[in-house]
Amino acid sequence: MTGQRSDARRNYARVLAVAVTEVAAHGAQASLEQIARSAGVGSATVRRHFPTRKDLLEAVFQQRVHALCDLARTLCGESDSRASLLTWLRELLTYSLDARGLAGFLTYVPLGDEDAHHSCAATIEDAVAPLLRKAVADQTVRADTTPHDLITLIVGIALATENHTAPAVQAERVLRLTVEGLSPTRT
Amino acid sequence: MTGQRSDARRNYARVLAVAVTEVAAHGAQASLEQIARSAGVGSATVRRHFPTRKDLLEAVFQQRVHALCDLARTLCGESDSRASLLTWLRELLTYSLDARGLAGFLTYVPLGDEDAHHSCAATIEDAVAPLLRKAVADQTVRADTTPHDLITLIVGIALATENHTAPAVQAERVLRLTVEGLSPTRT
Repeated sequence: MTGQRSDARRNYARVLAVAVTEVAAHGAQASLEQIARSAGVGSATVRRHFPTRKDLLEAVFQQRVHALCDLARTLCGESDSRASLLTWLRELLTYSLDARGLAGFLTYVPLGDEDAHHSCAATIEDAVAPLLRKAVADQTVRADTTPHDLITLIVGIALATENHTAPAVQAERVLRLTVEGLSPTRT
Repeated sequence: MTGQRSDARRNYARVLAVAVTEVAAHGAQASLEQIARSAGVGSATVRRHFPTRKDLLEAVFQQRVHALCDLARTLCGESDSRASLLTWLRELLTYSLDARGLAGFLTYVPLGDEDAHHSCAATIEDAVAPLLRKAVADQTVRADTTPHDLITLIVGIALATENHTAPAVQAERVLRLTVEGLSPTRT
């Protein structure tokens, strides 16, 4: 039994890792059959771990959020607080662009989504808070900037570019503009 | 007949001006009866000029876009190109926050909206182009900034703050952050 259970855990982790990659590449309509093939398991195994597409997408969502939190912790140990904060914000932007398809799909099942959304936003804000504090302490970011300001900015860039012909390219242009300043006063 | 026609034009202009104010204050569900009362005309007059709510909202939309174009022309004559550009972008942000309710309402009648949207975006980009050129010439804005970058930024801020408890306040925070720079390199 123990062997079977650890096999199941390994399968779950492998299927989820593949699903994260496939969903990033193909959005919410990623092929479950392709995920099974790439993970080296049968479709039945995928369906045992994730009975519906929504289950799979929610797990992918959570995996990405956990990865963002892990990344924030790692970057907090780096010496260049400005570079660390910007690296994390770029990763959040990539996630936000990927996640649009997911968000749209999950919207069809509204039960509890409101709470899940708020909890997800709070988790993300908590993750960036130490990175922001270090950047503020190093005077590379305005002292009155809040985690909420940062998340709002990144989500806004993702929302405004999602229907662009090259979302990632346009999003990077706008991010760079806002990091450097659209029209900073040189004092 | 001529007198009746110029009366009708005056009434139309007055109803539209009141409608712009009421829709800015109350969104797409602004009371048509209140608009009639404030304009000093009967409800029948409002309905003659704007047979449906959609007709009224489209006229309000167009009026706001025309006002943005007029403002850009006026500001282009001012000497401080940085202040002019930022004034115009703030006005676009205010409009974008107001317009969300309108956009949602008009979405229910999709016929031709796609074209109308693209045409509206092009009009807005054309309006800001001379202001941007002046600001770039005065080296207050990066030379490779495009009108599209600016519109994307402002629309993004509006989209990301529309469900905030105080959208205009949060939008202004994020706008200021992006104008000054989230973390500008001081070279």
